[in-house]
Amino acid sequence: MVTGAGAQRTGVWLVGARGSVATTAVAGCAALAAGLHEPLGMVTETAGFDGCGLPPLDALVFGGHDIAEVSLPKRAQELVASGVLPSGVPDAVHRELAAAENAVRPGGRVAGDVRDDDELIAVFAEDIGSFVREHGLARAVVVNVASTEPAGDPGDPGGARLPASALYAVAALRSGCPYVNFTPSAGIDHPALAEAAAASGLPFAGKDGKTGQSLLRSALGPMFRQRAMAVRAWSGANLLGGGDGAALADPDAAAAKNAGKTRVLTDTLGHLPEGEVHIDNVPALGDWKTAWDHTVFDGFLGTRMVMQTLWQGCDSALAAPLVLDLARLTAAAHAAGLSGPLPGLAFFFKDPPAGSPGDLADQWSALMAFAEQLREAV
Amino acid sequence: MVTGAGAQRTGVWLVGARGSVATTAVAGCAALAAGLHEPLGMVTETAGFDGCGLPPLDALVFGGHDIAEVSLPKRAQELVASGVLPSGVPDAVHRELAAAENAVRPGGRVAGDVRDDDELIAVFAEDIGSFVREHGLARAVVVNVASTEPAGDPGDPGGARLPASALYAVAALRSGCPYVNFTPSAGIDHPALAEAAAASGLPFAGKDGKTGQSLLRSALGPMFRQRAMAVRAWSGANLLGGGDGAALADPDAAAAKNAGKTRVLTDTLGHLPEGEVHIDNVPALGDWKTAWDHTVFDGFLGTRMVMQTLWQGCDSALAAPLVLDLARLTAAAHAAGLSGPLPGLAFFFKDPPAGSPGDLADQWSALMAFAEQLREAV
Amino acid sequence: MVTGAGAQRTGVWLVGARGSVATTAVAGCAALAAGLHEPLGMVTETAGFDGCGLPPLDALVFGGHDIAEVSLPKRAQELVASGVLPSGVPDAVHRELAAAENAVRPGGRVAGDVRDDDELIAVFAEDIGSFVREHGLARAVVVNVASTEPAGDPGDPGGARLPASALYAVAALRSGCPYVNFTPSAGIDHPALAEAAAASGLPFAGKDGKTGQSLLRSALGPMFRQRAMAVRAWSGANLLGGGDGAALADPDAAAAKNAGKTRVLTDTLGHLPEGEVHIDNVPALGDWKTAWDHTVFDGFLGTRMVMQTLWQGCDSALAAPLVLDLARLTAAAHAAGLSGPLPGLAFFFKDPPAGSPGDLADQWSALMAFAEQLREAV
Amino acid sequence: MVTGAGAQRTGVWLVGARGSVATTAVAGCAALAAGLHEPLGMVTETAGFDGCGLPPLDALVFGGHDIAEVSLPKRAQELVASGVLPSGVPDAVHRELAAAENAVRPGGRVAGDVRDDDELIAVFAEDIGSFVREHGLARAVVVNVASTEPAGDPGDPGGARLPASALYAVAALRSGCPYVNFTPSAGIDHPALAEAAAASGLPFAGKDGKTGQSLLRSALGPMFRQRAMAVRAWSGANLLGGGDGAALADPDAAAAKNAGKTRVLTDTLGHLPEGEVHIDNVPALGDWKTAWDHTVFDGFLGTRMVMQTLWQGCDSALAAPLVLDLARLTAAAHAAGLSGPLPGLAFFFKDPPAGSPGDLADQWSALMAFAEQLREAV
Repeated sequence: MVTGAGAQRTGVWLVGARGSVATTAVAGCAALAAGLHEPLGMVTETAGFDGCGLPPLDALVFGGHDIAEVSLPKRAQELVASGVLPSGVPDAVHRELAAAENAVRPGGRVAGDVRDDDELIAVFAEDIGSFVREHGLARAVVVNVASTEPAGDPGDPGGARLPASALYAVAALRSGCPYVNFTPSAGIDHPALAEAAAASGLPFAGKDGKTGQSLLRSALGPMFRQRAMAVRAWSGANLLGGGDGAALADPDAAAAKNAGKTRVLTDTLGHLPEGEVHIDNVPALGDWKTAWDHTVFDGFLGTRMVMQTLWQGCDSALAAPLVLDLARLTAAAHAAGLSGPLPGLAFFFKDPPAGSPGDLADQWSALMAFAEQLREAV
Repeated sequence: MVTGAGAQRTGVWLVGARGSVATTAVAGCAALAAGLHEPLGMVTETAGFDGCGLPPLDALVFGGHDIAEVSLPKRAQELVASGVLPSGVPDAVHRELAAAENAVRPGGRVAGDVRDDDELIAVFAEDIGSFVREHGLARAVVVNVASTEPAGDPGDPGGARLPASALYAVAALRSGCPYVNFTPSAGIDHPALAEAAAASGLPFAGKDGKTGQSLLRSALGPMFRQRAMAVRAWSGANLLGGGDGAALADPDAAAAKNAGKTRVLTDTLGHLPEGEVHIDNVPALGDWKTAWDHTVFDGFLGTRMVMQTLWQGCDSALAAPLVLDLARLTAAAHAAGLSGPLPGLAFFFKDPPAGSPGDLADQWSALMAFAEQLREAV
Repeated sequence: MVTGAGAQRTGVWLVGARGSVATTAVAGCAALAAGLHEPLGMVTETAGFDGCGLPPLDALVFGGHDIAEVSLPKRAQELVASGVLPSGVPDAVHRELAAAENAVRPGGRVAGDVRDDDELIAVFAEDIGSFVREHGLARAVVVNVASTEPAGDPGDPGGARLPASALYAVAALRSGCPYVNFTPSAGIDHPALAEAAAASGLPFAGKDGKTGQSLLRSALGPMFRQRAMAVRAWSGANLLGGGDGAALADPDAAAAKNAGKTRVLTDTLGHLPEGEVHIDNVPALGDWKTAWDHTVFDGFLGTRMVMQTLWQGCDSALAAPLVLDLARLTAAAHAAGLSGPLPGLAFFFKDPPAGSPGDLADQWSALMAFAEQLREAV
Repeated sequence: MVTGAGAQRTGVWLVGARGSVATTAVAGCAALAAGLHEPLGMVTETAGFDGCGLPPLDALVFGGHDIAEVSLPKRAQELVASGVLPSGVPDAVHRELAAAENAVRPGGRVAGDVRDDDELIAVFAEDIGSFVREHGLARAVVVNVASTEPAGDPGDPGGARLPASALYAVAALRSGCPYVNFTPSAGIDHPALAEAAAASGLPFAGKDGKTGQSLLRSALGPMFRQRAMAVRAWSGANLLGGGDGAALADPDAAAAKNAGKTRVLTDTLGHLPEGEVHIDNVPALGDWKTAWDHTVFDGFLGTRMVMQTLWQGCDSALAAPLVLDLARLTAAAHAAGLSGPLPGLAFFFKDPPAGSPGDLADQWSALMAFAEQLREAV
């Protein structure tokens, strides 16, 4: 008999623990657990997940790594000012924010840090292990919500260094923790980790959360294919500020992000149409993202037509509930003895494991089947 | 053993045979049969329909009723001028346009016509019967592509008269013809026809073809529901000219059309949000339609966000291939011995039979299952 | 020698004193006077108005009529919740809000009120007169910011009753007060008031403030005309909630509003193109308005092209600073001895006095000339 | 006494004579002269230019340089296929297209060409001189409508070579011809030409025609400034195909173009807000350009609001009539004895001479004053 994750306290170890997404997830989880808000945006709080043995929201314990200095309670106040968090929330959940802040440990690979990769991995793994032991957790899920790394970042081009995201992933493996990659960075998918990941017996989810433009594309792409309309061009522009805007102003980081967007088109249309995607840093927008998409398609007798979409969303408010969903689902997968990449979670990602369905609706069906699998394992 | 529709000549009897949609369907069918264009926009020309016993495009024979005087070849020239048909098409398929024009018979219920409903139905049924006999057709499908009737049109408020769309539907029943309602008008769904329709043993498809704004809504609504985001308001505006724009400038006709748009939201979201839909007659746009949708939704912790879509399409180019698809599929259903409303064709409609799936993706799955059913019957 | 308005305390008597626009104006005026915010959105705080003898912001004293019961301080709190006012403002300016609330008197024409027009006018005029006397004001400007009246509202169709907006205007005349009509209601322009208005020697400004869609139209219309492009259709949709959304859901009120929008097109293009304007009540949007405009135009050799605009603004935040601008400018005009309609203020209105310039740029030039006229009179 | 340009045949020498803009200008000029179309999009055909002594359309004679091989009549047929020219036009004006084609001479600086700058200039000047003599022209205006050169193109980085656009400008000077630069390339503004240009006594117009996004910006920027709203960010995306799309896919060429767009913002707002501009090559769009602009601005009490514009236009149809306008106006300026840069023509350009007005409305006033100056000189 397998024991479900539901009854036990479960850790959520956030790489990038003091960022907007992490802070919103920690504060929001506490606000929902306290019944202050309806659980909007949380997939796992809908009826299809009843009886799946997911850890309840009030059983989640947060900690993590970060190289930023601003504390979670302070970051939460900033997020009120920028309209991400409702004004009363930081005070109402101050205890939980402070608890998470206490469990944040320094990240690595910063200027002046002379430790090599092995030393960093050892420290990171020890941090995670201590977190699990000190809080008496059944398990902890490591979730990467740090800034996007440049696309080709090899850590150290000519040598043996791994990109930072991979260091945390190795630490997760070493600590026996399931791992979720919400970013386009390499993480557990780095080729150098393939063997260890496969041997670990742990479940993994990823990569690159789908929260706006790509979500729309995975809903709309199938419509064009099913209606036999030929998409000639699909162009996009993204404007956002905040930390993510600044990080993605780096062309290499943007390239990493755009690879996922491109994949959604190829997966749903069956081919890659003309068109580019731009990501502009517009500090005035803060955490709010505007995405414009322009699609040129040909219908009957070649008649040329156009669809445009505009998406004005709050990035952290879109991402945070999915982070909670993924932590719960991956914890339950671990409790159910599942291992390896989880294509059943493709619904959440731009760049899911090879062989995952590409249409949003098929991804939803796969998620429902995954929920059923968990239910049977409880 | 059931004989498929594929081997035999099949009639397509268009109510509104000289309109933009009908003319585009007749001209386009001939152009595709002649190999002049790729079959873009035609669902039944994709791989999923191989072996379903559909009548080939060059086996379709067109005729119909209309109260308009402009001939199909002349209408086709006008459609070139307004950018609906490519410039060479009317000349290239003049023979087929002329043949269809020869098979058009006068519609009824025009000013000064003193015939009562029974007389009109008898004439319409005789027209359809003659068409089948003269061309030696295996069967004919009656397809309503006439202008939308006012929502509450009772034919004759105080008395026994049926709306015009229902007269043609009775004539179809009397002639033993499968029936497709591509419009929001009552047609075969008029309550007074329920008994005769049920007793006829014929298959029916409808109603109200889904070609733009509603198509998008049925693709995007499920996304909000699956992601647990609360849609607060969904507002829409439609601008179009042409005959359809003029017809829908009548508030009662627009109300009929909007009922279908509303149903798509209720079916996919599970509730009806705030918001209205407007349809404006803008003659300068001709057959081109612009639809703007504005969606207000709440995500995590109640964060208010907005999605907007703009759809700039050619109405006739969107509708015509679906008319051909539906004629072929309903003919094959008839050949396969199916009867009654066909929920397997919900993919094409705003207002499909009760119990049909509402999500576009589920409608696609139902269509694939329907194709499989046809395949097994061949 | 004429004495400028600058040195003296000046009243602003708001018809609709507890509404969103009035509350935002009162709170914002106090916040600016206290130096809490930059004077964004206020035209009269820019360099072009130096030396015009305008009453300074801290010399404005507020009062008014309303039939609503919610007090200004409470309304201000609600406006924080809906994102119109910054969160600290109501507390910071509570004294000024309470002072204005103390100077609000009950409006008339409510259900059960048996007073006839003459009685109401007498009460209103006495209210205004007391306000001026009690506060020792040099003058008071009466500003109509109440909900839009239905277009054809005759007060009493068969009889002698005036629409409510005209009653307040008569009271202003009787009290010797300059008058500003920020709404599309009749107010001082009601035909029955023409003679008294002309004889009063008072200056008037109006009507129908230009804050979004119409502002854009008056900036963009001239561009098409100057470039000799033929505008074929200009269609618009407006979504808004709040009190204004509810009031404009009444088709007659919307008709009044749309007349102004139509006039802007005729004034700037030289003709009225095809197209309609809709105003939808979308409560989920609160005070935030989204306006979509779709313009079809023909260029060289008749090439058909399209421009679209989307305006997402906060109605009260757009209107309130203009109310302050207009109160100051009209007060200064009164001090300068000007009388009758003021075409120099057309910059602020959809429906300015006959003979006013229509292009936004020409209206700006006229405003600069008006400022010069004031400067010379100081 | 000055002799007006009106009575005499006037040459228009197009650098880039076989491109889309040039072909549309030549074909359109002939179509208008023949009365086949209304003169939409032509500023100089409106009433404000009566009596200015402009050469009539049927007195314009076309020739030019190009390195492309496709003839003008063939290019015109292609422009019909892509929807730029109405279908009947190339046949109707074949004589004029052929005449212009006969007057096209090979451009320079192509691969394998071993001639140095001086040789090229000499040949170009001789080509222009022959054109004027052979056709007995009163004068010829040289107009640059060639593809945009890379921003920093020095011709020859380490040496003495000029960019190609400057070679044609020197040839114009040497031939005594007025010069118009419709592109962002250096042309007559190249520093190496400053002395010769000043000494020439010839009039010049430029640079970088304003046909879409920048036109809108110069109409909308002043609105924000006059209403005292603080523009925080102005971002833009441009999608277009055709030759211009391909040329501007070069980041250096795009940079040249974007400099003009930036200048319009600075000139009208008084500062440069956040935001970038992208130009994407989308071959599926052909000559049709879609420009999206997203403007973030703060109003009263810092309330953050957003405006977006979408412009879907045909680039050649927008540019061609302005080319004709500029050729006529510059010819008349030459006849009137004017010399040097013409700030009166800023209305047409993104990057007009220093000291030109920046608001579109002020540019219009300056153009009207310029017309008056011409009228007085006739």
